[in-house]
Amino acid sequence: MSYQAQQCRINRLTSSEPNQRVECEGGLIELWDETEEQFQCSGIHAMRVTVQHNSLSLPNFHPFPRLVYIERGEGILGVTFPGCPETYDSSGRQEEGIRGDEQREFGHQKDLHQKVHRFTRGDIIAIPPGAVHWCYNDGNEEVVTVIVNDLNNPSNQLDQTFRSFYLAGGVERSSEQRGKHTQQQFNNILRPFDPELLSEAFDVPEDLVRKMQQTENRGLIVRVDKGEMRILSPGSEQDYDDERRRKYVGLDVNGLEETICTMRLRHNLDNRREADVYSRHGGRLNIVNEHKLPILRHLDMSVEKGNMFPNTIYSPHWAVNSHSVVYVTRGEAHVQVVGNNGQSVMDDRVNEGEMFVIPQYFTVSVKAGSNGFEYVSFKTTSSPMKSPMVGYTSVLRAMPVQVLTNAYQISPSEAHQLKYNREHQTFFLPSRGGKSRRF
Amino acid sequence: MSYQAQQCRINRLTSSEPNQRVECEGGLIELWDETEEQFQCSGIHAMRVTVQHNSLSLPNFHPFPRLVYIERGEGILGVTFPGCPETYDSSGRQEEGIRGDEQREFGHQKDLHQKVHRFTRGDIIAIPPGAVHWCYNDGNEEVVTVIVNDLNNPSNQLDQTFRSFYLAGGVERSSEQRGKHTQQQFNNILRPFDPELLSEAFDVPEDLVRKMQQTENRGLIVRVDKGEMRILSPGSEQDYDDERRRKYVGLDVNGLEETICTMRLRHNLDNRREADVYSRHGGRLNIVNEHKLPILRHLDMSVEKGNMFPNTIYSPHWAVNSHSVVYVTRGEAHVQVVGNNGQSVMDDRVNEGEMFVIPQYFTVSVKAGSNGFEYVSFKTTSSPMKSPMVGYTSVLRAMPVQVLTNAYQISPSEAHQLKYNREHQTFFLPSRGGKSRRF
Amino acid sequence: MSYQAQQCRINRLTSSEPNQRVECEGGLIELWDETEEQFQCSGIHAMRVTVQHNSLSLPNFHPFPRLVYIERGEGILGVTFPGCPETYDSSGRQEEGIRGDEQREFGHQKDLHQKVHRFTRGDIIAIPPGAVHWCYNDGNEEVVTVIVNDLNNPSNQLDQTFRSFYLAGGVERSSEQRGKHTQQQFNNILRPFDPELLSEAFDVPEDLVRKMQQTENRGLIVRVDKGEMRILSPGSEQDYDDERRRKYVGLDVNGLEETICTMRLRHNLDNRREADVYSRHGGRLNIVNEHKLPILRHLDMSVEKGNMFPNTIYSPHWAVNSHSVVYVTRGEAHVQVVGNNGQSVMDDRVNEGEMFVIPQYFTVSVKAGSNGFEYVSFKTTSSPMKSPMVGYTSVLRAMPVQVLTNAYQISPSEAHQLKYNREHQTFFLPSRGGKSRRF
Repeated sequence: MSYQAQQCRINRLTSSEPNQRVECEGGLIELWDETEEQFQCSGIHAMRVTVQHNSLSLPNFHPFPRLVYIERGEGILGVTFPGCPETYDSSGRQEEGIRGDEQREFGHQKDLHQKVHRFTRGDIIAIPPGAVHWCYNDGNEEVVTVIVNDLNNPSNQLDQTFRSFYLAGGVERSSEQRGKHTQQQFNNILRPFDPELLSEAFDVPEDLVRKMQQTENRGLIVRVDKGEMRILSPGSEQDYDDERRRKYVGLDVNGLEETICTMRLRHNLDNRREADVYSRHGGRLNIVNEHKLPILRHLDMSVEKGNMFPNTIYSPHWAVNSHSVVYVTRGEAHVQVVGNNGQSVMDDRVNEGEMFVIPQYFTVSVKAGSNGFEYVSFKTTSSPMKSPMVGYTSVLRAMPVQVLTNAYQISPSEAHQLKYNREHQTFFLPSRGGKSRRF
Repeated sequence: MSYQAQQCRINRLTSSEPNQRVECEGGLIELWDETEEQFQCSGIHAMRVTVQHNSLSLPNFHPFPRLVYIERGEGILGVTFPGCPETYDSSGRQEEGIRGDEQREFGHQKDLHQKVHRFTRGDIIAIPPGAVHWCYNDGNEEVVTVIVNDLNNPSNQLDQTFRSFYLAGGVERSSEQRGKHTQQQFNNILRPFDPELLSEAFDVPEDLVRKMQQTENRGLIVRVDKGEMRILSPGSEQDYDDERRRKYVGLDVNGLEETICTMRLRHNLDNRREADVYSRHGGRLNIVNEHKLPILRHLDMSVEKGNMFPNTIYSPHWAVNSHSVVYVTRGEAHVQVVGNNGQSVMDDRVNEGEMFVIPQYFTVSVKAGSNGFEYVSFKTTSSPMKSPMVGYTSVLRAMPVQVLTNAYQISPSEAHQLKYNREHQTFFLPSRGGKSRRF
Repeated sequence: MSYQAQQCRINRLTSSEPNQRVECEGGLIELWDETEEQFQCSGIHAMRVTVQHNSLSLPNFHPFPRLVYIERGEGILGVTFPGCPETYDSSGRQEEGIRGDEQREFGHQKDLHQKVHRFTRGDIIAIPPGAVHWCYNDGNEEVVTVIVNDLNNPSNQLDQTFRSFYLAGGVERSSEQRGKHTQQQFNNILRPFDPELLSEAFDVPEDLVRKMQQTENRGLIVRVDKGEMRILSPGSEQDYDDERRRKYVGLDVNGLEETICTMRLRHNLDNRREADVYSRHGGRLNIVNEHKLPILRHLDMSVEKGNMFPNTIYSPHWAVNSHSVVYVTRGEAHVQVVGNNGQSVMDDRVNEGEMFVIPQYFTVSVKAGSNGFEYVSFKTTSSPMKSPMVGYTSVLRAMPVQVLTNAYQISPSEAHQLKYNREHQTFFLPSRGGKSRRF
């Protein structure tokens, strides 16, 4: 797959589903087509990962930041940073899962590890570049996550290609493909090393090293024997409180662990009390930016979840400082996007499970379908800002009436209507009802 | 027009005039050829816009910062930012311009809008990325502006292509072209939207929306009916004072409006008392950097205006941290530019109305013509720094005499001359008179 | 040589020697092949410069930061910044070197110049972008330096091509080449200027200017007449003390000189007491980052010197926030590098005098040869961070035992071995002795 300089010659945006599948014994990885113009322009790579009940997504890391949205289910996420302390002790609970002979051997040893995070439906999780992470589904339904990677982030000193580094597992080739690319990005980085060297390095028998290297047949998500994975998983309340109190005193490795090691990584997008925009007849908007989740400053990403009531209009607006990558979580809508040359680059119905990109400064309008519309929009900035055409922060309202009258050859009265008819509203505008042509 | 990765394989710099024209009823837009090597290397796009008396340049915005130099005339500029307050009230003065029946309808309503700025000849104006701006000529002569856009600015997440977003007006195609490109970048972004949706969004009749969409025949600069555009336009004294006093307390939209909403956007380049370099026999240099105009820190751009007396030499020097884009405002000069491989890439006479680029670190010398030389140089940094070969900050003066004697195989006495003969001068060196070969 | 967007499609890394030579009367410049994939990916350009006893490397500057490692010898380095003061006075000592008639003329004049720096074997020297620098070998053996340039540094607004700007000297073409490129990058930037203009600018006779322009035959490193170059060269103790005491009060040129003018530029990598990692049986690691040498923050580069005892293993690890460019200073080693797709991209013996790149996040293991292994590794970040697989900061140790047992299908006991067998060690692991297959 050849890399070229970023291009945004967008003629046509398309709302699409993933076009590549990697099936594993414990789940499914689906990838959107990174060669599409809209993903090339935005430097975004997106995937959807399904983890079955009692399955483990194997440890991996990436050279760029990623946001993970939990569409369904609940579970445990481990995120490890080099140099951060092992402040969690799962040894107490673990004993039940140890077989008899093992227990005799080290049953009283502690098993310290870095913090794990409990997640649930509606959470957004921030994974900093290079952080090794794994995910375990200990719930009762499958976990479905939508993951957006920002390949253009300056932390990535490699080129603008999607890369995964897995510490275990691997797939030889994808089990199914709609596109033309041969998928080879998922392989265990331990495999090619000289077993004798690894054996010396870890100070373990070569047999053990060979086991670590021969994991490619299991894929990237594996099933776990029942009862084995009882990991310390704090409830969410404890989790939040702990974070506020905990203060790590330790090695000063670049001063980074003071910020990263103890930072909160997740925030729920479904909290009604935290809604940033709420319109009784229009809908609800929850924005998670660097103020609500400070680690996002390190990622320079953010996210917004919108819940639009049936037939509501999201007034035409553009994003000032980011691209937006929109994933439809429920319902449908009619979306129109217009580019800089006044050309309509999208004018389509979008459906649940699809994704599309709205490039920076492109104007978008959305009209929710008759069953409403719910989406998650990922942004390539940690402090997103949008400029609406309508409402109390509208760009037209900011201009003198005389500019509008002369710009549009309209009367002062008409200009006043443009400026003030939606004076007390913004973003989500309830439909005038029944008159809509399209829904 | 295809985009490629930035290249600076400069073999030849050329001082050139714009090669593309867009004629409008109220003025003229001229564009320099962005495919020239020098503009590709620097990531600069340049244009000259002429606005006739009593004409309005329609509201537009761009995904990158721009500096506007007012070469001639005076007028009013509106710059709006999303989320900034409408702190200006033009309703008092406006009434005179309202026709009778309109006045009855809403004559006592206020017309609040965001700040407008009065500009005059010699001003430089900073337009942040994404800020919607319009310009009205209420003076007695035509307004001529030279505009430099920095496409490489990191705020621009689209590619390195020039893009304009117009909220009104539009041109189908350019009225005249010397180059080969078909120009399509200027079109109203409202036009393609579904009128019914816009009508709902603005809560105005569909007729009004259709008027807003059908403006492409008027171009991008329109004539204004006499008397209509009486907008609150503070005198410049009031303008400056207001800014220091005004403190907006309002919505916290990303904390940005605290800095952007009330920041000064313009500075005059012709203020003799503010000259940064003044030589009684050489000339005058006015630099406007982030210290004089703090908003430039957000744009990472700056500007310098030079006024060289006849036959003065601008000593060979290079820019340490930016490209320079030079526009000739008056007179002529002989300019020589040398690149890294010791190759002369320019050795030409430059004339009024032309523009050329001096890439970062390329050495340039200028000798003013017999009528003097005046220019404006735009920089791709907010804190420009140059390294002269001659004078009290000269790079040769910073080296021990012995390094010079051995480097150039000259005597210590000669090395001393190189270091100290211009000890008390810098940049603008008066000619020794009459001896010049070229002028 | 054509420039393309950065690409990291690394199939094969190779440890290589320079492939281009420029011979000069006073020394030798050797360049690594910048078209190699590994250098293209990392944006690194590397060279080795040998300066003979009593020879002078002529003043030059570059549009990007560079780190200079002194592999052998000692001497004096001058680094000048525009706007910094001339705080050194070499006139006292210089008199001895001045011939009789010259001395009469200006023997009592001072020769003020900017600071010079004494360097010695094992030093790393930071050269900020655009700083003019020269180097003089006043020692008894030849000076050998290894220089790494970071072309991707954001200070470089030109493209990602290697460029040198020389103020004196020049070579017409390279004296010998193994590669296919014609080398033209080294030429005096003064040469093409109009001698009459330069004569006016410097206020010196045209004859003197012509001497400055006709230096291309001498190359880039010149021999110095014995006795001439007695430049004030503070001993290293004085040097360090001076820096702490000196406080420059002067022109405020962009505020930059407050930081740059008086900052320390060099640090020795061989200081045993400063070792960051020391293992009695393994070896020693000295890291010079922005904390030890604050100017590195401006360069966003750093360096590490490793001294591995015979047969020691550098445990598998990856660099989190930089590429690494490794130059072998002594001994040999077996190096294996694995990329993101689990593919071995290097599995070779590396030898003294060779260089290779380890891309960001690529996993590397090193096993020192039977005579030990010593290297210098240059990093494209000022605060390097690595993630080891083994030892007390190991990524495996940070994970719960249950994740390891399920990821690798191993027993809890085996997982404990992986986590804790090297609990008290990190990075340099002594060999178990005699068992190694390769050495």
